[in-house]
Amino acid sequence: MVSLKRSMLAPGRFPRMPGIPGVSLQAARAGIKYPGRDDLLLVTLGRGTTVAGVFTRSATASAPVQWSKKVAASGKASAILVNSGNANTFTGSRGVADVRSTATMAGRVVGCRRSDVLIASTGVIGELLPVDRMQRALAGIQRGRRPASWIRAARAIGTTDTYPKGAVRRTQIGDTDVCLCGIAKGSGMIAPDMATMLAFVFTDARLPGSVLRTLLKQGIRTSFNCITVDSDTSTSDTVLLAATGAAANPAPKSATAPELKAFRNALKELLTDLAIQVVRDGEGASKLITIDVTGAASRSEARTAALAIANSPLVKTAIAGEDANWGRIIMAVGKSGARLLQKRLAISIGGVTITHAGERVESYDEREVTEHLKGTEISIAVDLGVGRSTSRVWTCDLTHDYIRINADYRT
Amino acid sequence: MVSLKRSMLAPGRFPRMPGIPGVSLQAARAGIKYPGRDDLLLVTLGRGTTVAGVFTRSATASAPVQWSKKVAASGKASAILVNSGNANTFTGSRGVADVRSTATMAGRVVGCRRSDVLIASTGVIGELLPVDRMQRALAGIQRGRRPASWIRAARAIGTTDTYPKGAVRRTQIGDTDVCLCGIAKGSGMIAPDMATMLAFVFTDARLPGSVLRTLLKQGIRTSFNCITVDSDTSTSDTVLLAATGAAANPAPKSATAPELKAFRNALKELLTDLAIQVVRDGEGASKLITIDVTGAASRSEARTAALAIANSPLVKTAIAGEDANWGRIIMAVGKSGARLLQKRLAISIGGVTITHAGERVESYDEREVTEHLKGTEISIAVDLGVGRSTSRVWTCDLTHDYIRINADYRT
Repeated sequence: MVSLKRSMLAPGRFPRMPGIPGVSLQAARAGIKYPGRDDLLLVTLGRGTTVAGVFTRSATASAPVQWSKKVAASGKASAILVNSGNANTFTGSRGVADVRSTATMAGRVVGCRRSDVLIASTGVIGELLPVDRMQRALAGIQRGRRPASWIRAARAIGTTDTYPKGAVRRTQIGDTDVCLCGIAKGSGMIAPDMATMLAFVFTDARLPGSVLRTLLKQGIRTSFNCITVDSDTSTSDTVLLAATGAAANPAPKSATAPELKAFRNALKELLTDLAIQVVRDGEGASKLITIDVTGAASRSEARTAALAIANSPLVKTAIAGEDANWGRIIMAVGKSGARLLQKRLAISIGGVTITHAGERVESYDEREVTEHLKGTEISIAVDLGVGRSTSRVWTCDLTHDYIRINADYRT
Repeated sequence: MVSLKRSMLAPGRFPRMPGIPGVSLQAARAGIKYPGRDDLLLVTLGRGTTVAGVFTRSATASAPVQWSKKVAASGKASAILVNSGNANTFTGSRGVADVRSTATMAGRVVGCRRSDVLIASTGVIGELLPVDRMQRALAGIQRGRRPASWIRAARAIGTTDTYPKGAVRRTQIGDTDVCLCGIAKGSGMIAPDMATMLAFVFTDARLPGSVLRTLLKQGIRTSFNCITVDSDTSTSDTVLLAATGAAANPAPKSATAPELKAFRNALKELLTDLAIQVVRDGEGASKLITIDVTGAASRSEARTAALAIANSPLVKTAIAGEDANWGRIIMAVGKSGARLLQKRLAISIGGVTITHAGERVESYDEREVTEHLKGTEISIAVDLGVGRSTSRVWTCDLTHDYIRINADYRT
């Protein structure tokens, strides 16, 4: 395994996160791939917990993704079993059987049917899951039953993450105080082998499964679906949201209920917080880049244009090199397929307007932009000049360390 | 400017290329950006020359691309003026006027209307063309009129190319011997500033404009449209095909005429030859990668899947690292959007079958693949298992030198 030092963009420290009533965390060392560290997380969810999930759209999605899609579709679950070190992807019918076995085992520990167990795996592709090692670790959990902290849980699900990722938000539904806690791992495709973005968010709010699903979809749209490190998408990407109902707020009828406004915002904030932490751990990242596209014909075209900039190797290397090479942004939006009017195209970096109405601004002073590019938080804004839709996307730069991590070390 | 050493994948030497009757080449030093080297090429085309062009689909296409699209649409031209060092892109109405001026000047030298002059520019974006320097250079050409060789012409249009690119094919239309000569520059987006893929192909065949257009479109489909270096698309990409008619073959009525079979193949071969030379000059390239996708539902999906592999930073870095990390190929086809059946997905590298029927082959020996990856010509084959369509795509690996060229040097 590559030995990685903590990302220079890592946040100060892991947040203080309270327990969520109805959520119990247990971690164990199964020795799946990484020696001497936790690599298994079992989350027990209280009776009546509702769940929603969003999964990779990859046509080569892993066996656990295919399993968990079905469980999540039922709207409820009693447990989540997560392992790191092996993705159980491209493992054929044996991989499918292995998911079933591990769900059965986890169900025995928790006391539920296997069809109530969500599964997420991350790690190497094409290798069979060491089911017996996982079974031994689960037996240990059953004997011990000592709860794990959020930070320990966040570490257990990591692969080549250089720091554990967690976020917390406190809010209200009507008059009831509720809390949201989430952990995440990965960075698009952060690992040398093949990694993954996993995120698990828990709340004590009482929310029907259908409401939860809508809230998660809306929340993902502007957070996890708006980050990219290297344009590569994992076969295991999974975001799960579980609501235990322990806060006993009156259940809202729909996701648009007015009493959910604060909760919706808190969920979006928390998902965005976790998503940006993932980008900050991007392989070799030395700069966090925020890209705002405005004036697009539709929200989808705004996102397409923003992602074209975010995924352009030439834009990413220019920023790594602190080079005010705005021509590469012109190139990226041009190739994106999003509609634009050249004569209205406006670009600014770090708040400095570079082009306006399709031409370079006369007074443009490159030194101001170069100064901004020397920082670690870079902002790019582009107006396409054709409509009113907007999108914000986060990415990181492309550095020698990306190549070092992905090419120089054998997996 | 970055000082670049000749690509380790460069072909042995520039081919011996004969003159094409009706084509006259002249090169000059205008001092547009690069000091002490040719940066202007004027091609004079004999009376009756037909032309066809294919251009970038970028929404931020350069002023010369917008001009030349119109000229090429007429099916005939008397001259081509090419400059390197400045792309005349994102230069607003002044850029459009500058194209008109330079076309007028070239027309005066050649003795034709400006509307018969094709223009191609490559280089930095967002800066105005130094029209007066180009005028002085054209005046020098008019006084001197010494013809340039193919290799000199190929060098004049280059930017950060590490070697000049040329190709020749001899064939017949009916009983008439005809010849094809082409030159090219670039590598997708090879330059630190912003570069471009330009190619100019000349033949003495007699071919109506409409026939030429179809032949070029068909030829591009499996050559220049099937290469990628870093997924970035230039605002100036241009491929022009000019037929002088000097060979005086009986003019074929359509592009599907049986007497054109050999010519069609020769054109495809020549375009593919030039396209691969462009990939071999990819920034930092240490390996040429050929990707064959078979079993796709459509030709377009085959190409989509092949390009997803070719553009994946994780696949490209794995190959740079000589790492048999086939899981990344599974990931890339999975995210591509092309339809596939996991249980039929077959992958091989260097002719060694790794997966078959959705699982890793029992007898798979990674050492054989690792041995293949130590070479400089890598082949990847993927069968999607859903149809009969195929596509072949060429790319190169992603190395430290790509980062060095694009990030470490200020432009």
